[in-house]
Amino acid sequence: MPRYRIDIEYDGGPYAGWQRQADLPTVQAAIETAIHAFTGESVTIRGAGRTDAGVHATAQVAHVDLAREWQPNKMQGALNAHLALVGAPVAALAVTAVGDDFDARFSAKARHYLYVILNRRAPAALLRGNVWHVPKHLDAAAMHAAAQRLLGKHDFTTFRSAQCQSDSPVKTLDRLDVTRIGDLIEVRASARSFLHNQVRSMVGSLKRVGDGGWSADDLEAALKATNRARCGQVAPPDGLYLVKVDY
Amino acid sequence: MPRYRIDIEYDGGPYAGWQRQADLPTVQAAIETAIHAFTGESVTIRGAGRTDAGVHATAQVAHVDLAREWQPNKMQGALNAHLALVGAPVAALAVTAVGDDFDARFSAKARHYLYVILNRRAPAALLRGNVWHVPKHLDAAAMHAAAQRLLGKHDFTTFRSAQCQSDSPVKTLDRLDVTRIGDLIEVRASARSFLHNQVRSMVGSLKRVGDGGWSADDLEAALKATNRARCGQVAPPDGLYLVKVDY
Repeated sequence: MPRYRIDIEYDGGPYAGWQRQADLPTVQAAIETAIHAFTGESVTIRGAGRTDAGVHATAQVAHVDLAREWQPNKMQGALNAHLALVGAPVAALAVTAVGDDFDARFSAKARHYLYVILNRRAPAALLRGNVWHVPKHLDAAAMHAAAQRLLGKHDFTTFRSAQCQSDSPVKTLDRLDVTRIGDLIEVRASARSFLHNQVRSMVGSLKRVGDGGWSADDLEAALKATNRARCGQVAPPDGLYLVKVDY
Repeated sequence: MPRYRIDIEYDGGPYAGWQRQADLPTVQAAIETAIHAFTGESVTIRGAGRTDAGVHATAQVAHVDLAREWQPNKMQGALNAHLALVGAPVAALAVTAVGDDFDARFSAKARHYLYVILNRRAPAALLRGNVWHVPKHLDAAAMHAAAQRLLGKHDFTTFRSAQCQSDSPVKTLDRLDVTRIGDLIEVRASARSFLHNQVRSMVGSLKRVGDGGWSADDLEAALKATNRARCGQVAPPDGLYLVKVDY
């Protein structure tokens, strides 16, 4: 069966996450429905990152097997036309024919996430739903310095959701950079893979460093405790974006 | 009466523009209602730019006269709390006590607008409602070069809406820069003041230059014709932002 890679952008706001669920709107279901609309085929697509409810993507990657061959350019146009028809804030950025050795989830070598905090007194108007509004001033340099303590291979149990289905809590974090750009604070996280809620849990704990509640040592102690109860607030989904997947 | 300057950010999407209208939601009415909620005063505020339906602002400026004196910081907090309560995508970025010689509209020395085009095949997902999606490739350098022909003092009748209430069609355009940043094309326009629909009319005509339909000479000829029928498509409001007002 011909296999296609689909690069996808979406606003996660109206969705109960990426993964298909009975009776709830999900990004996966929106795309599968659109594919069905123009191919007549009932398919299951597989995504690189199973983003949570409200989490966005500028470059999610999925693959799909179809019975019939399609011209990738036409398939992209048809997909976007059907997504637009139902008003889904989901767009196919590219469609590529790939070999059946390509698996959007299992071939992925690294995943890159961006988390955006709006750090000012006034709430978000234009960026509502797309950032975490933190009114209290955050020290981004302190956050960045503390973040470096989390790099490398660790048991990330402290930063793992109770619903996480991963076999092991041990992951290798390759990048965790914190940068201020005016009123915005950007956190960039890279790893081969992440635990469920790991990025949001780390960002919530870094926020605690930024507002002076925790030192870098406190953050490191929380990591080493391998105890979920030691995690700071889990940052809301609004500020999180899957921005790149490496193959 | 004490006078206050309010700096305002808003998503224009749900509004019929800045200016109060009977039976239609407007940004002005949202703010006046919020002020009434915490002061008990029925006020009329005046804005620097009467943005159209769907047009956004990162830095609109308005002023209001109140019977009672308010601590500006507390007034900002109360305004934002009341706007949030009704779910208005409007935020008071700052409130400042000003003298009664300050008039948000008439003291303004210059207005700066940004227009954002998303120039790629795939429609906008994350930026939906916040950009103009143009699928056909646009030559931003050609657009910028042509834009320079519009600088200076001209009769801008070609780029003026039929509903424009300005006494004269003569305006002085100080800046019209076109820059590409990846898939985005930014058009930055500055003038003491603009005619109704002028920025969107100029952007629509520049798009025609960008897609090869018009040369820079064609654009200049359209300007010199001082004939509304010679204008290109009026660009949609989604991509337009009032980003700065100088005093």
